[in-house]
Parts: sequence; structure tokens; C-alpha cells
Amino acid sequence: MNKAAVILLSGGLDSATTLALARAEGFDCYALSVAYGQRHSSELQAAASIAQMLGALEHRTMRVDLAGIGGSALTDSNIAVPETPTTGIPSTYVPARNTLMLALALGWAEVLGSQDIFIGVNAVDFGGYPDCRAEFIGAFEKMAALATRAGAEGHPCRVHTPLISWTKAQIICEGLRLGVDFSSTVSCYQADELGRACGRCDSCRIRRSGFEAARVPDPTRYRPV
Amino acid sequence: MNKAAVILLSGGLDSATTLALARAEGFDCYALSVAYGQRHSSELQAAASIAQMLGALEHRTMRVDLAGIGGSALTDSNIAVPETPTTGIPSTYVPARNTLMLALALGWAEVLGSQDIFIGVNAVDFGGYPDCRAEFIGAFEKMAALATRAGAEGHPCRVHTPLISWTKAQIICEGLRLGVDFSSTVSCYQADELGRACGRCDSCRIRRSGFEAARVPDPTRYRPV
Repeated sequence: MNKAAVILLSGGLDSATTLALARAEGFDCYALSVAYGQRHSSELQAAASIAQMLGALEHRTMRVDLAGIGGSALTDSNIAVPETPTTGIPSTYVPARNTLMLALALGWAEVLGSQDIFIGVNAVDFGGYPDCRAEFIGAFEKMAALATRAGAEGHPCRVHTPLISWTKAQIICEGLRLGVDFSSTVSCYQADELGRACGRCDSCRIRRSGFEAARVPDPTRYRPV
Repeated sequence: MNKAAVILLSGGLDSATTLALARAEGFDCYALSVAYGQRHSSELQAAASIAQMLGALEHRTMRVDLAGIGGSALTDSNIAVPETPTTGIPSTYVPARNTLMLALALGWAEVLGSQDIFIGVNAVDFGGYPDCRAEFIGAFEKMAALATRAGAEGHPCRVHTPLISWTKAQIICEGLRLGVDFSSTVSCYQADELGRACGRCDSCRIRRSGFEAARVPDPTRYRPV
């Protein structure tokens, strides 16, 4: 019997590759998407297709109603998604998002009897997000070992971050090698309801440069300007 | 101007006292309840009244749909709430619950510009829950300092646990001194829709013994047997 792992799956390029990597390592994959009120909800539909295409045993979408606290361009329609490069932590940072998503994954892992969580964080392209750094992930693991029944009983959970130090081009090449269909992934922060990308936000820019650097065709569906 | 704090408010005796303590310390209190599918949802109505009675500036209820993962007597109606004392971690333990609730509090605190979270965990009566221990809270604080924009910018969040080493009787005495109306609080794991307690679950037993030890009348509304 394979070991079970919970894979956080946003529907973007990184998390799709992460799922493919976890499968390639022989895990039975339980894909978890989190609907937290993000404006790009078409990524959740993408996640469902990707989970199926990449052989996840199960895909669940947990819904979190943040009761309108806002605080991010991704959850508050009054804050614009930046379309020019910024320095520091961008306005698309969602307060405590990775902590929240990992907490949900931790709960599901415990119910499944799994000790493995995969998250596609990347510190190269998303160095501006504090919760994409290795130090954060390490601290989360330490906390998780104390948080759960499984941890208290000597079975702590490991948080795998296979992409953390890869460039976008490396992620794309590895994903292609593992059969990920990137045309089904949605990375854009303001994708339309058909999953078509704006081509202008940070996430679109990083993704497009990744395909260029990897010297492979960009299969992204962009919406007409 | 007072400092703002986020107070996790379940609607039970401990969190009501915690809110009263935070107010007494001079914080502007933002009360946060989390609807995670618990069977005793009347505690959420209790939380709304308590927030108002104890002078919270705002009360929000965040809803988390755990997509039916279950794993606890509190979230899965197929698992009975135990009515006799148990050893070890009880079946009412909800996987990663305090991690999840603290993550939500952390997100709101960051949006508010607050560096203070209060949670009414208690390691004396709830020593069986791993996420009620001081070591867990300390590890959460360390993780949170790395997780957020505020933490990354040198303003980490403190998690206050004023009740952590108090007995239930001490909590009750302090709550009464601060004017908490315990008849409005709901502790029972299987309270009915009117908020009336069963009198038999762990939580009811611990609460009733607390009033006895404190030598004050028990104002709990029990439902007819």
C-alpha cells in the first residue's frame, strides 16, 4: 500500500507540478483546494480537472469565509491587482494564507492517517511573500508536531516543498517531463470566468518569463485585450 | 488609543472570561468565532451575545467548511460524544482545530494592525488536547512571526493564554469578578438549539465541578432528562 499525502492544489502551475512530483514519488494523493474568497475563482475549477488528470485519489475543496476581513488585492475588490513590478511584499499577499491552508491540510492529513503534506511554495519567484520561505515551513512543521494527536503520539507531519528553490523554468521543465498539461492550469490573479489570463499581473509575468526561459511554447490562454 | 486585540470566542465559559480579561487589560477587543461544523452550534449564538455584553468592538464569525473530513465527535455525527471519563486524547479532539482558529485570528490581526491574539486554552482541564499546551502556543508564535508581513517587518504577534494554568474554579471566580454572565455561556459539546446543556459530556462535567469547587451557584441551563 502506498503512503497517503495531502497536496495543496491551487490550480496553478506550481501546485500542479507538485502534485505530479508527489505521484512520481509513489504517494497516494489527496488533493486539497481552498476557496478563501479569491477573485480568481476559476483556478478552483482548474484544480478539479488537474486533480483528475494527474491521478489524485480524491479532491476536496474546503471553503473558508473570512467574513470580509479583506487586506489583500486577491480578496478585496477595492484593492487593485498591481500590473507593474513592485518591491517588498506585494498587495496580493493574503494575510496568513499559507498558515491557514497548511492548517486545513494538517487536519485532513491527521484524519487520513497521513504524515505527508506537499505545498508548491517557491522562494525564488515569490520571495516577497513571507510564508513562501523555508524558515516559515520549518517553523510550521515544528508547530504541527505539537498541535496534533498524531504529533503527540510520535508521528509528526512533514511538509514537503519540492519547488522551493527552483526557478520557474525548472518547474516547467519538470512538470512537462511528468506529463502536466499546463494549458489547464490557471496562474493569473485576475483570470476571467473561463480561466483566461490577463497577461499583465505579477503572476502572469513570472509565468510567461518561465516559459521563455525554459524555451518551450507558452500554452496559457490569454484573454483578448 | 487602545491597542487592538483579536479574541477567539467560542461562546463557552473560558473564552468569555478571556475576553473579559483582555478588556480589563485595556485592549480594544475584536471577537472572532469560527463555525467549523461543530455539532453544538448554539455556542455561536452565545458568542454573539457575550461579545456584545462584554464590550467587544466587533464580532465576526468565520465559516470553515471542512468538506466533510470528520475525524472528531464534534464534527461527525457518526462518532458519539463520550459521556464517561476517558484517558488520553478524547474523541472530541478536532484535528488541527486550534491551529486553524489561530491562523484565522492571525489573518484578522494582521489586517487590523494588531499584534495581540487571546485564546482561552487551558492545560489543566484539557490536558488531553495537544493544542491546548503551552509548548504548542509557543511554537505557533514562532511560526506566526515568520508567516506574516507584520512579522517579517519586525512586528510579530503575541498569543496570550491567560487561563492556561488556571483551574476551572479560578477561571469562574475571575470571570465573576469581571462581570461575566456565565448563564449566557455554552460549554456543552451537545447543547440543544436553545443552548441547554446535556450535563453528561466531559465539558459539562468539568464545568459543573468548577462551579462546585468555586462554591458558587451553577447558572448553567440544563435540558430536561
